Amino acid sequence: MKRATHCAGKVFIVGAGPGADDLITLRGLRVLQQAQVVLYDALMSARLLDYVPSSAERIYVGKRCGRHSAKQDDINRLIVAKALEGKVVVRLKGGDPLIFGRGGEEALACAEAGVDFEIVPGVSAILGAASCAGIPLTHRGISSSVAFVTAHGARCGESPDLSWINLARETDTLVIFMGSAWLAKIATALIAAGIPGTRRVAVVSNATCQGQATVLGNLENISDRVAQAGLAAPMLIIVGEVTRLSEALDWFKGRQTAAFATV
Amino acid sequence: MKRATHCAGKVFIVGAGPGADDLITLRGLRVLQQAQVVLYDALMSARLLDYVPSSAERIYVGKRCGRHSAKQDDINRLIVAKALEGKVVVRLKGGDPLIFGRGGEEALACAEAGVDFEIVPGVSAILGAASCAGIPLTHRGISSSVAFVTAHGARCGESPDLSWINLARETDTLVIFMGSAWLAKIATALIAAGIPGTRRVAVVSNATCQGQATVLGNLENISDRVAQAGLAAPMLIIVGEVTRLSEALDWFKGRQTAAFATV
Repeated sequence: MKRATHCAGKVFIVGAGPGADDLITLRGLRVLQQAQVVLYDALMSARLLDYVPSSAERIYVGKRCGRHSAKQDDINRLIVAKALEGKVVVRLKGGDPLIFGRGGEEALACAEAGVDFEIVPGVSAILGAASCAGIPLTHRGISSSVAFVTAHGARCGESPDLSWINLARETDTLVIFMGSAWLAKIATALIAAGIPGTRRVAVVSNATCQGQATVLGNLENISDRVAQAGLAAPMLIIVGEVTRLSEALDWFKGRQTAAFATV
Repeated sequence: MKRATHCAGKVFIVGAGPGADDLITLRGLRVLQQAQVVLYDALMSARLLDYVPSSAERIYVGKRCGRHSAKQDDINRLIVAKALEGKVVVRLKGGDPLIFGRGGEEALACAEAGVDFEIVPGVSAILGAASCAGIPLTHRGISSSVAFVTAHGARCGESPDLSWINLARETDTLVIFMGSAWLAKIATALIAAGIPGTRRVAVVSNATCQGQATVLGNLENISDRVAQAGLAAPMLIIVGEVTRLSEALDWFKGRQTAAFATV
């Protein structure tokens, strides 16, 4: 195997955060500034690429329904191949790499190839949505547990994966990733599983970004309300009584067209 | 009420991240640099205070078992009072403010007092632990759901809150906060609830910090192993088969005494 032994590369698997470019970590930023190759996703701020040296190679490996521009195995191979060329490779992923981010698969590919790697955590999309929509995921007297699940189908266009439906009865706050295409189906399934139709729900679209919008409702009416509001993906679905706190705590509302985090 | 109407203050409830000082977000850092008052916790890097202007007032409001140096209601009142003096107040909290952080209570206190506020999300302690110990919380074929619970008693020294024990059967990966004092009791309760004693467990101590240590085992032996290793709090308990991936992915191991995130 032709492999550079004295200039071995290194891979950084970095969480870009929930969307807004200033919600990346300081460590993530510093790593980006030293990148020689960056492989990046769809669900992150394009402005993060401004931190990458102009000499660095930029490779888009986003995956979207109906447009399988890159398969996971191909991404894994590409990361390893670039590192074996002796490059500092940054794999920049929306949110956090290890919650529905498939960062574990990329890290395993590195480990199996003997490539040195580090994982830099990020603010998960759900933490960004919670903070900006004013929804505490846990709150004394209302919620003492929170679960994260995905409703993604095995392949795009198929039925959603609802293998977690029994879990919904046991957790106070349930966060559903990648469920926007199946919101009505999910709400119906939750009611069928024994959750009251009056259980409060929030759907947060474009969390932390300029177009952020939140729709509040309950399991019975949330699907209609989201359709009426014309919310766009990506969306996060939060089921639980904590979502009613958003009425008092949605500090972000009305600021969508202005800069925020301003003193 | 004596209240400055033309120089109203503002409160920023900021997640400091999981421990290491470079795992705060860029936004959190920028807010810190403009603080006039900082109220800070025990579970964060003291080095973050270096970013605070020297003229700013620093107030320690950490809560620890047996040493109730500050009660939550008192903290809420203090935050609001400082803002009503017209100050830029930063409430700096370990991890993320809205997952077992009681940031929702602080935000509500601001909302009720008519004080302007923003919430800046942070990297939760668990995401830091997962990244640095090489434990993907979700992983294709092994885990498609993850739940966060706390084992904290109603008051320190009491029995742990295990109201979530049924949830353990329904989720692939279970993360238990504040459970270190009751590890043996928790493991016994999980087995009694029907989880096999062979279910893999990881306990991560001082996640992302120089003293980080991980102990791997299963429900039957984890308590003994943690005692043998002499692990110190704070600890996170991760229950699920994903923890076995740490054997291959613990890139941090052996680096405890060196700087990391090095290219």
